[in-house]
Amino acid sequence: MTHGGRRALKALLFDVQGSATDFHSTLCCEAQRISAGRHPGVDWAAFVNAWRAAYFNAVDSARPSREKWVSVHSMYRAALRSLLDQYGLTDLSGAEQEELTFAWQRLAPWPDVVPGLTRLQKKYTLATLSNADVSAVVNISKRAGLPWDAVFCAEMAGVFKPEPAIYHMAAQYLALPPGEIMMVASHKYDIRAAAALGFQTAFVIRPLELGPNGAVDVDYDERFDINATDFLDLAEQLGC
Amino acid sequence: MTHGGRRALKALLFDVQGSATDFHSTLCCEAQRISAGRHPGVDWAAFVNAWRAAYFNAVDSARPSREKWVSVHSMYRAALRSLLDQYGLTDLSGAEQEELTFAWQRLAPWPDVVPGLTRLQKKYTLATLSNADVSAVVNISKRAGLPWDAVFCAEMAGVFKPEPAIYHMAAQYLALPPGEIMMVASHKYDIRAAAALGFQTAFVIRPLELGPNGAVDVDYDERFDINATDFLDLAEQLGC
Repeated sequence: MTHGGRRALKALLFDVQGSATDFHSTLCCEAQRISAGRHPGVDWAAFVNAWRAAYFNAVDSARPSREKWVSVHSMYRAALRSLLDQYGLTDLSGAEQEELTFAWQRLAPWPDVVPGLTRLQKKYTLATLSNADVSAVVNISKRAGLPWDAVFCAEMAGVFKPEPAIYHMAAQYLALPPGEIMMVASHKYDIRAAAALGFQTAFVIRPLELGPNGAVDVDYDERFDINATDFLDLAEQLGC
Repeated sequence: MTHGGRRALKALLFDVQGSATDFHSTLCCEAQRISAGRHPGVDWAAFVNAWRAAYFNAVDSARPSREKWVSVHSMYRAALRSLLDQYGLTDLSGAEQEELTFAWQRLAPWPDVVPGLTRLQKKYTLATLSNADVSAVVNISKRAGLPWDAVFCAEMAGVFKPEPAIYHMAAQYLALPPGEIMMVASHKYDIRAAAALGFQTAFVIRPLELGPNGAVDVDYDERFDINATDFLDLAEQLGC
């Protein structure tokens, strides 16, 4: 959909885990590599999705503050430990567990992300707005060459998306009104929260976010300012 | 000076105003352009240095907090207004004053900065640690093409350098111990504060920071881990 009556748009905020990066493939590959074929029967796709679900539960039940911040890395680490118990995968060493947990900081971007962002950055300020740790987003972005102008994360706000304070923080840091900023994500809860605060919204579908058999919401919704198949489509619709 | 026994180094933090950018030239040029020759007798070099000094006073007397943050942009704006009065330059319109104040967000980098950072970023994580507003650092960096991996600013810490909390914040966000991070600046108060917290230090001289006639401290000091003539020399000394 092209968007004729677009309001002034100056900056775009991007979700990272899922929307810009393919955590499912990265984690499945890394789990296989690190376990070195010792567990041929494990359904790593299901394992990774269970890990991701445990992360969402940890974020939901967290009572965070800037002063006593609990890193997402430590959430992933704790969730991994209990999942390994559940699956009976008790032979992964502590070092292997840590290496696997750090795979969340080595996420590969979807193929359209670098070329899409490269087009978008010529016209707009681009920043992340991620629940992942700052260090994780920095490591992912440096490795993948994602051309952000700034990295904004939950750790800076002291709360996770979809809490309003994190979106307000991004608007303050950009020194722009929400109406001149577009939140881009493959998760509707994220862009709906931004929309409620006056941000523009782009829904980018990621049908493979949970793997080939994952159940993912990819239904366009005309209440979003843009619905796009990927970041190149987003750039196209924004005239970049 | 090359540094044989260097400790592990993962990331570099950079001061922006003065160390990475030439505010003096930028502001002098912009003042002349915006005043459009209406004030041929004004010593813009002295004017800009007085403006910069007023900014330092404002930062020193600020009692900031994250909740009630006062932007550096508004400090520059207020300082400009009283300086214009002092100089009897009463014919600059409000729009012209705002355009001139925004020149602090259009600072040109020193000529060695883009090539120096480009070499350094292949080996290290590079971030700003600036007292300027986040939006100012983002605007300066985007315009100049400065390849930061992250932008960290006083606004995120709720305090200005040289308060310890801002250096601690950067270390937390990078998820690194201070000993693996180097603070780079042309101002000794900044790197001394970082050194006291266990950060590595690089002093980069900027003899022209206050213009051709400015009095600037450019004396190397062996207590810093590195003393360098510019960012290319810094890259060279770090083996990049």
